[in-house]
Amino acid sequence: MDTRKGFHQSLQELQHDLLKMGTLVEEAIHLAVKSLAQMDQELAEKVVAQDDQIDEMMLQIENGCLRLLALQQPMAGDLRVIGTALKIVTDLERIADHATDIAKTTLRLSGESLIKPLIDIPRMADLAKAMVREALTAYVERNIDRALALAEKDDEVDALYTKMFSEIVTMMGSSRAMNRQLTHLLMVARYLERVGDHATNLGEWVIYMVTGKRQDLNK
Amino acid sequence: MDTRKGFHQSLQELQHDLLKMGTLVEEAIHLAVKSLAQMDQELAEKVVAQDDQIDEMMLQIENGCLRLLALQQPMAGDLRVIGTALKIVTDLERIADHATDIAKTTLRLSGESLIKPLIDIPRMADLAKAMVREALTAYVERNIDRALALAEKDDEVDALYTKMFSEIVTMMGSSRAMNRQLTHLLMVARYLERVGDHATNLGEWVIYMVTGKRQDLNK
Repeated sequence: MDTRKGFHQSLQELQHDLLKMGTLVEEAIHLAVKSLAQMDQELAEKVVAQDDQIDEMMLQIENGCLRLLALQQPMAGDLRVIGTALKIVTDLERIADHATDIAKTTLRLSGESLIKPLIDIPRMADLAKAMVREALTAYVERNIDRALALAEKDDEVDALYTKMFSEIVTMMGSSRAMNRQLTHLLMVARYLERVGDHATNLGEWVIYMVTGKRQDLNK
Repeated sequence: MDTRKGFHQSLQELQHDLLKMGTLVEEAIHLAVKSLAQMDQELAEKVVAQDDQIDEMMLQIENGCLRLLALQQPMAGDLRVIGTALKIVTDLERIADHATDIAKTTLRLSGESLIKPLIDIPRMADLAKAMVREALTAYVERNIDRALALAEKDDEVDALYTKMFSEIVTMMGSSRAMNRQLTHLLMVARYLERVGDHATNLGEWVIYMVTGKRQDLNK
């Protein structure tokens, strides 16, 4: 760790750990939405339990970053790379929290059947997962164009949320049980909309890492 | 900056900046909920506009932390203090984002009257603001007991949210306009519930800073 080569090796390992965490987070969203679509309580419990593993990864990566910073006195560029990693893990962890929120919704709806098969929620989840993957690819490739493209995808996620909000409010009526389920499903849509926002944050950190400048991808 | 004394002075400044940011964030929640309770569109716009200032403070504090880490090679204890500051600003910024979410709800309900005066939402906001203040006091005093006490207060916030969820779902009925407003108000309750979670995060970072150990305050 005390040579320049050691430092760059540590940065490589850091990048590797971030990607591994990203893969776990994507999987968490996927499985959480699957648990909801199939009303699979066992799967939902698994997603909730696995969140601890993701939190643990976050702590490890953060500690690694702080140690790198303190031991290596990195210069401006490397300082930004490590600072970026610290921000990325926080956003990834929040995305995983939203996966947990979704899995908990499955648990809250335990014993109920869905009013109708889910269509827009899995679509939002696919878009949001793709955004997370794109953002991490942009990070690895230090690719600003990929990062910038996240803004448009986030607009799609936002549009789906707005559409769902309107539709769900229209479907509410005299049945309390139905209103309750609709409200829970709308919350899930909101969580996925937030996942999209976190993915644009990831893109913003990549742009900052490469250029040293901040850019708002979520206007 | 290159003497030990300079380092501790920098830590003092860092603490001062965090408290200043915390005050702005508390104010943002206060004004956002006030804008909603009074349907004050102008105030809501002000809250949204001021979020940029809070984001800017976050970036400044983060950059200061990274520079301190890189230039000063702090030892374990100070490393945790700076690492904690990095986490605290992120939670504070998310709390401010929720204040913005609430102010945007006021803007979305523009032209409407509230179905009934807000009671539980201001109560949740008061609890959540008090939690943020307690957490920052715990940080300044390095007071673990204060940090631990946040868990109970968060339970109160959670209980209010659960109560509101149930009541609001019961109030939904045949009027689409009313269902829409109720759904927006429930989202506001959810944002405040999240603010409570972020305040418990702040408490967790304080415990970590003082003891070097992680503790879950939000079970």
